[in-house]
Parts: sequence; C-alpha cells; structure tokens
Amino acid sequence: MKQILIAFTILVNANLVFSQTTFDPQQHRVVTTDRPDGRFVSTYGVVHNMLKNTTPECAFNPDFSREQFASWRERVRTAMETIMCHPKAQNMPKPKRVSVEQKDGYRLETWEAYPLEGCVTGFKVMVPDGKKGAIPDVLCIPGSGMAKEHLTGEIEVKNPHAAMALNIVRHGYIAVAVDNACSGEASDLERLAGVGYDYDIPSRILLELGWSWLGYTSYLNKQVLEWMKEQPSIRRDRIVVSGFSLGTEPLMVLGVMDKSIYAFVYNDFLCQTQERAVVMTAPDKRGRRPFPNSIRHLIPRFWNYFNFPDIVASLAPRPIIFTEGGLDRDLNLVRRAYEISGNPDGVEIHHYPKYANPENRKDVKSLPEGLDRTEYFDAVNVDGPNHYFKDELVLSWLDEII
Amino acid sequence: MKQILIAFTILVNANLVFSQTTFDPQQHRVVTTDRPDGRFVSTYGVVHNMLKNTTPECAFNPDFSREQFASWRERVRTAMETIMCHPKAQNMPKPKRVSVEQKDGYRLETWEAYPLEGCVTGFKVMVPDGKKGAIPDVLCIPGSGMAKEHLTGEIEVKNPHAAMALNIVRHGYIAVAVDNACSGEASDLERLAGVGYDYDIPSRILLELGWSWLGYTSYLNKQVLEWMKEQPSIRRDRIVVSGFSLGTEPLMVLGVMDKSIYAFVYNDFLCQTQERAVVMTAPDKRGRRPFPNSIRHLIPRFWNYFNFPDIVASLAPRPIIFTEGGLDRDLNLVRRAYEISGNPDGVEIHHYPKYANPENRKDVKSLPEGLDRTEYFDAVNVDGPNHYFKDELVLSWLDEII
Repeated sequence: MKQILIAFTILVNANLVFSQTTFDPQQHRVVTTDRPDGRFVSTYGVVHNMLKNTTPECAFNPDFSREQFASWRERVRTAMETIMCHPKAQNMPKPKRVSVEQKDGYRLETWEAYPLEGCVTGFKVMVPDGKKGAIPDVLCIPGSGMAKEHLTGEIEVKNPHAAMALNIVRHGYIAVAVDNACSGEASDLERLAGVGYDYDIPSRILLELGWSWLGYTSYLNKQVLEWMKEQPSIRRDRIVVSGFSLGTEPLMVLGVMDKSIYAFVYNDFLCQTQERAVVMTAPDKRGRRPFPNSIRHLIPRFWNYFNFPDIVASLAPRPIIFTEGGLDRDLNLVRRAYEISGNPDGVEIHHYPKYANPENRKDVKSLPEGLDRTEYFDAVNVDGPNHYFKDELVLSWLDEII
Repeated sequence: MKQILIAFTILVNANLVFSQTTFDPQQHRVVTTDRPDGRFVSTYGVVHNMLKNTTPECAFNPDFSREQFASWRERVRTAMETIMCHPKAQNMPKPKRVSVEQKDGYRLETWEAYPLEGCVTGFKVMVPDGKKGAIPDVLCIPGSGMAKEHLTGEIEVKNPHAAMALNIVRHGYIAVAVDNACSGEASDLERLAGVGYDYDIPSRILLELGWSWLGYTSYLNKQVLEWMKEQPSIRRDRIVVSGFSLGTEPLMVLGVMDKSIYAFVYNDFLCQTQERAVVMTAPDKRGRRPFPNSIRHLIPRFWNYFNFPDIVASLAPRPIIFTEGGLDRDLNLVRRAYEISGNPDGVEIHHYPKYANPENRKDVKSLPEGLDRTEYFDAVNVDGPNHYFKDELVLSWLDEII
C-alpha cells in the first residue's frame, strides 16, 4: 500500500483532488488486506475487522435452559438501561388534555406531557364509543417521515393501512399515538420549508451529550406509557406497543425496560444489524463504502451488548407478532426463545407475501460480505415497496391474544 | 405549533415532500418558542436548550489557587482517560523500521507500529545529519485531508509551510510524522478513486462500538509516542507535540494523558466548541440548521466535561504556542492558567496577521445565537484563507523553549 501513494494536491478541500477514471468498484466489494501478516493499513479495514470480531455480551443462546433464559433476560434489561441513559423523571407536571373532539365512532383527545425541563411532547388518545370499563390499549409509534397525525388519520395518508391508530380505535381498542423525536410537531423548521424531517442534527447534539435519538425518544414514550397505566379507561394489564418501521426501535427499548407491557406488534423485517453493517461493504463509484443508516440509529456500545433478534427474544414469553419477516435464521432464534420460556405460541410470524412461500425465501447461515444496500435487502427477504402497516394481520391477532 | 400542521404526503422518502416558496430562513435564525411556559415542542429546541444548559464538570476556573489548579488538572486527566477509551496496549510486536533513505541533510526512515490486533500504522522518522547524542524531537500531526507524506515533503505541497516535519528536521530537530486515522495510507479506496478521505464511515463504526475517531487516532499516536521515548537518539525530556488544524485534537488528548510531553505547538484558532454549536443556528434555505462539524469530531460526553480552552489550560505550565489566535476571552483563560501554575511566560499567542492589531479583533463576552458558519469564523477572528502551518513562528519558538 505504501508504495502506491499518489501525489495529492494539498490543501484541505479533500473533495477536489484529481479524478481518475480507472477505478472499478466491483474489484473492491470485499474488504481485504494483501499483507502476509493479515493486518490492515486502512482504518476502515481495522475497524471493520473490529466490528466483525465484536461478540455481543448479551447474545441469546438457543441452548439456554429456562432458568438461564430468565437470568439472561435480566442482563439484557440491565444493558438496555445502561445504554439508553434515561434520566430519572422527577418534578414533572402531570400530562394535560388540551383538546377533545367527538368523531364518527370515537373520541379524539390531544394531550401534552412534560417529560423534561424545557420540553413538551404531544400525544393523541383515541377512545372508541360505547365501551364500558377499562379496555385494552395500543401505544402506536410511527415510522420515519411520519407524524402521529398520520396514525390518527388527521393527516391524510396515501395508503389507508398507515393510519395505525385510526384502524385500531375503529376495531374497538383505545389507541394512543405518539411522535418520534424530530418528526411531526416535534420537527424544527421542516414543515415551514416544505422538506423532510431532519432527525440527524438533534441526534448529533444528543450524542455529544452522551445520549442518543433512541434514548431520548424512548424516554418520551415511556412517560406516555406511565400515564397510560394510570388511566381508569385503560386495562393496564393489556397494554400493547405497536411499532412501524423506525417505531420498532423504541418498541424494543420499551419492551425490555417495562415488564408490564402485555404484547408487541413488530411491523418491520427483523435482522442482525451488526451483520448488516459488516456485509454492506460494496463501494460506490467514488470508492465510498456505505453504512446502513444515519446517526439517529447510533447508540454507542449497542453491539457490544446485543442485536435486534437478541432483544426481541428477550421479550418472551409476552406475545409478539412480526408482520414483515426477515431471515428464518433470525426468526427461529425468536421462536426458540418463546419455546424456552414456555410460550411457543406467543410468537406469530408473517413474511412479505412475496416471500410467504418458504421456497422463495433465502435461508442462509451467514451473509457474504460485499453487498450493497439493494442486495442486502434482497438477501434478507425484504420487499421494500410493500413495507406498510399490516393491519390486516394485526387486528385479528390482537383479538386473539387479548 | 400544533395548529399549523401541514398536510404531508406520506410515505417515507421525506425529501420529496412538496416545496413551498414562502419560507424565509432569516426569520428563524434564533431558536425560540412561542409557548408561555417557555417549553419547546421541537426536538431541536429541546436539545439545543439542553446543550446550552450543560455546564462542563471540568471547566477551568480563573480563580483557582495553585493547589486547586493542580487537583483540577488531575480531574481533567481522569475525564479525558474516561472518554478516550484507550485499550490497554498489550502483546504488541515492537515497531519495525521498514526502510531508510539518506536525503539532503537528513535521514528519512519509514516505520511500522502494530498498536491493535489486525492493525498496522506507519510513521516517518526524520533525523538531521551531524547531531551527536540525544536531541529534541517533534511529533507532527497533520490536518484534515493531509497525509504524513505531506509533512515530510514526500508528497508535494502547494504551500511549503505545510511540510511541517521537513521544516523541523531542516531546522535541526528530529521530526516524527504520523497519519491521522482514515487519511494517507490509512485511507480506504479514496486514493484509487481519486476522491477526498472519508473519515466519517470508520468514525461511525468506532462510535457504534463505544469508541471514537479521536479516541482511536490518539491511541495510535500514543503508541508512536511511547516508541519515541525509548529511542537513544531522542531526548525524552524534550519531546514536543505539534498539531496542525485537525491535528490539534489528538495533540490535546496526548497532552492531557501524557505528562512527559515537554511542549506543544497548537496551530489552529482556539474556541469554545460548545458555544460554537450553540450559536450556529442560522438555517439554510431548506430550513436545516448547521452543526459545526462531521462525526469524526463526535466524542460522546465531551461537553459534559470540558471545552477546548479548558483542556489547553490544563497543559500549564508546559510551554505552548498558539499560532492562529481566536477570541481574547478564551486565550486569556489559558494565559491565566499559566499564571496560576507559575509559568506566565509558558504561553505564546499569535493571531492571524489580519487580527494582529487588537483593534481589529472582535472581543466579546459571549457570542449571539443565530450565526451561520461564515459569520461564526468572522466572529472569532479566523482568517480562513491564511490557515497554514506557521513555521515562521514555530521554529524560533522551539529554539527558545528548548
């Protein structure tokens, strides 16, 4: 490597260095070193290798006994508490109802909570007409680019499935809808400027202060969850958390941290996120290797502890539905966790229709390095254009488990 | 805010939402809330407020007694060790010399160190001819977009000042030149593709694992520093660390963590980085507020402990030269630290020529919010086009302090 140093013109706007037409990204999909000692000169090579060799401390082991499983689950919880850095909620004013409206078949309430100094967060409560006593409740967490008002139907959605909370209240359960941090009314100037939400700059500030987007947004959700438990209209032993896409991340955090949640709707594909970062190494034509996602997903030390399948496995035996599949390899880990914990029927798994037939699914032990984003999604049975909230599966499942 | 929700079309490619021509960024330079309780609805508002209210635990206090100063300095050191997360160096092969070349007036050696499993890092050693016994040595750390070969003159530089190590060896001291992580031969495919170095993707991987670009690169530098201390040709009580631009960051880390370093060349402006992030809030025409820099500069919890002036203040009483000024407010803190520690002449400060006359310098107690990048640099006396390694100041200063 040392011998092929190319004359660089200095200084510092590094994007303006000369271009060279002979670079072929196809030849560099996999990260290698040509040194006989196997060491990497490139920092990317070193840290990619470091990531590959990181074994999460709290990985689920399919050979756990029931007792080992239970004690492992506590270790997952402790680790999650450690990296989420939730502050102690103290001296917060109680949430307030700021408006109420009667709609066709349900009551729509707008509430405010005050989870942190200098912070207010809105949430919506939808209560079906004609129900007596406490009833089950679903906390609805939206996906990227969405607001809670998409979930309630107050903002029109192209695909009516997306109105998660509206569909749930019409089905007869209370629905509570929250925003993700940085989106909907929690966005900054984006709605005025007519552009998409910027999750990354607030995430960056949080990270500088030792927090994270996910730690922050799950903390806000947690305060809403605590409020839900105190409502006479809500059966506190039948609280379900439902996450769509990005919303599955706070779902996992809440699920691990709060044992009182009854069940979960996981509306996204499930994957080994560490493996995803390890195998997505195919450079673009400028020689840049990708990273799977932006820094709103960055939680320092996450992979030192676990991957997504470990986390959802730790939710057993509480009922969970997966609506958009993934690799059987990963989903089988979750199935195994539910078996060990004595509730093998507690997990229900659906694949994208395209991959419903097992013969159409890729089933691999480990993915090869050198993939780009599209190839990765393809390799883990994701049918992107059909990524939406699958209420056609969720509503009947809710009836069953409740 | 709730009342002005604008109908969004869903889904999820948030950049494709409708555009609106009436947005005027000038009206939103400062982050405000119109709520009577002063709380922020926007996540940006909340976290900006959080950042503003963060008081670094290890802030320098100009009223310190000499004893208080000394014990505070130890707290800075402990905090730096905590957030830099250097692993214990163990079972590493000794650095090896891989080539040696006689040049006009000096010997140029290329060395390799093996600071981590799977990792090799190269460094250059330049030894002036005709010196007897151990002599002083300067560890040279480059700026962004530069390689160690720019410092040694092996790669031509437009501005001959930039060849820091070459200028130092010609002046009669040993110069050791390192790469920053992700640059020079430690880059990935950038030199093949003819594009600028990508510091951010490796930084992202490091952050996921609980480390950081600065933690990593300073750890590599530290191994070279340890090697330097063992060389018979080097006076271990006269080791200087010199950082240009980005290189001032590892300089600060090394300086705090290693008490044996004799002196420092800080070749960049000095600023309160936390304040910089707080005041740079002017949105662009798309409503995006800036962040001062990319994630290679992200060290979780940094501002919970200190700002740059606190760190360099803690280097007192060891000699330091600043070559590119900053705000007098911040530089005076450093002067005060050197007074308290009993070496008021230990700090030498130069401004950019444009700001050499105090009458030309802005001198403020605190900067106003609502600045953009250009306004910020202007406000802190930075003359960007004249940012280069000021060997015309450094070499004579080195002679004096050595």
